[in-house]
Amino acid sequence: MTEWTTDKLAQVDQTMTRWLADLGRQLRTNQQEDLHVQTKGGDFRNLVTNVDTENQAWLLEHIQMIDPDAHFVSEEGDDARPETMAGHVWFIDPIDGTMNFVHEGTDFAIMVALYVDGQPTLGWIIKVMANQVFHGGPALGAFVNDQRLAPVANDLALQEAVLILSGRRLVAGEMIYQKLAEAALAYRVVGSAGISFSRLFLQQATGYLSKLSPWDLAAGRVLAETLGYVVKTLDGSPLNMLSSNTVLIATTKTYRESVKIVKD
Amino acid sequence: MTEWTTDKLAQVDQTMTRWLADLGRQLRTNQQEDLHVQTKGGDFRNLVTNVDTENQAWLLEHIQMIDPDAHFVSEEGDDARPETMAGHVWFIDPIDGTMNFVHEGTDFAIMVALYVDGQPTLGWIIKVMANQVFHGGPALGAFVNDQRLAPVANDLALQEAVLILSGRRLVAGEMIYQKLAEAALAYRVVGSAGISFSRLFLQQATGYLSKLSPWDLAAGRVLAETLGYVVKTLDGSPLNMLSSNTVLIATTKTYRESVKIVKD
Repeated sequence: MTEWTTDKLAQVDQTMTRWLADLGRQLRTNQQEDLHVQTKGGDFRNLVTNVDTENQAWLLEHIQMIDPDAHFVSEEGDDARPETMAGHVWFIDPIDGTMNFVHEGTDFAIMVALYVDGQPTLGWIIKVMANQVFHGGPALGAFVNDQRLAPVANDLALQEAVLILSGRRLVAGEMIYQKLAEAALAYRVVGSAGISFSRLFLQQATGYLSKLSPWDLAAGRVLAETLGYVVKTLDGSPLNMLSSNTVLIATTKTYRESVKIVKD
Repeated sequence: MTEWTTDKLAQVDQTMTRWLADLGRQLRTNQQEDLHVQTKGGDFRNLVTNVDTENQAWLLEHIQMIDPDAHFVSEEGDDARPETMAGHVWFIDPIDGTMNFVHEGTDFAIMVALYVDGQPTLGWIIKVMANQVFHGGPALGAFVNDQRLAPVANDLALQEAVLILSGRRLVAGEMIYQKLAEAALAYRVVGSAGISFSRLFLQQATGYLSKLSPWDLAAGRVLAETLGYVVKTLDGSPLNMLSSNTVLIATTKTYRESVKIVKD
């Protein structure tokens, strides 16, 4: 099994960052050409396109070139998912925010992450239309393209905080979403986990609450923890990277106040 | 009183478009320098900054140069508002989405509109950080910078439509927001009327529902009607441009289905 020295991690970070930038360039050029949209599982809101499938195959193939020991957890993957987090687990979301991709032509992302023996190690989020790759990890720091991201600064109270919330959960009447929407200065509904994470990293919001699948959470978690954000469930149960989690990614103060509000 | 020939309108359109582009450039350069934020009316969510006040004064002064007969309806204006829509009524929103301006540094706009004897005549919305000026009117057509905007195309059913909703109204439990959020393919919460309108005009959404003050609605209404969008209340009551309206701006099909859902 490959040894993941810091040099090796830096090399993998750079390679994947370049690949994602290339993939993003292709997508911007070919967008909407021959786009086939289907729904999954009989849910009219659960979209998948041929671009999801193609990106997924491309990323799988390329990751196997740099990591022959890779296991995969991916949105459009088959059922060959690992049963534990042992070894090298790669998470792939080939198009995050497929609805935005199809209907808005912007505010969608591609996300990739590497966890080694359960440890968040490297993460990548490309905001395709903005040509911004957020990447890095605890050993390297976090960057947007070539620029180092500043660690969490504005540790604002909820009354001063802009939150990003899952619109679907909010309108379904889930109480924690309702309570946080009422308490915060403002909330936004964005429609893509990757774009939501990128807004946190650019300090345009101080918290993001959603129920996230492993491929929605994995890359954002690596980068958020690197920058000093709390990434936790609201009831204190541990994150399980092989299933869905209702998770709040936030500054310390926003997280603490949110937990208090949920308990009240 | 000035006669508003098409030539004169085109000239006013070009002049104001240039002024707003200049104002936007200044804002992008000086953003957050010497920013003073206050709340209005004891509401912690109702923000005003020195930039709102300065933009307002600058726009008032410049509009008076090209239209000595101007009456003004503006967010930060004094109480000298006209009592009727007779003559030349100019609407000014010097910073639309002040919360985004202060907390996100993006997704805010400046909006100006001219109504002549109650008729929507010219409108301008500048997305400041994107350097995009949406402008025009029924006599000229609608443009983003120098590019003519396409009229409404995707006349989608609600189940295929992305709506933009007022987050504050939704979380306050107003039933029409809840019903439309449940029925639509997806909804987004953006935090700025100008940015919401711009997404409609770029065909990234098919409807926008909010309770809008005159200066929030005036410019967007001019451009939306020019492009073929319906701009109406959901209960059929006429728009009153001198007070607030709960208004749906949407494609014909989305509007028709929304009215039906609200009645059910």
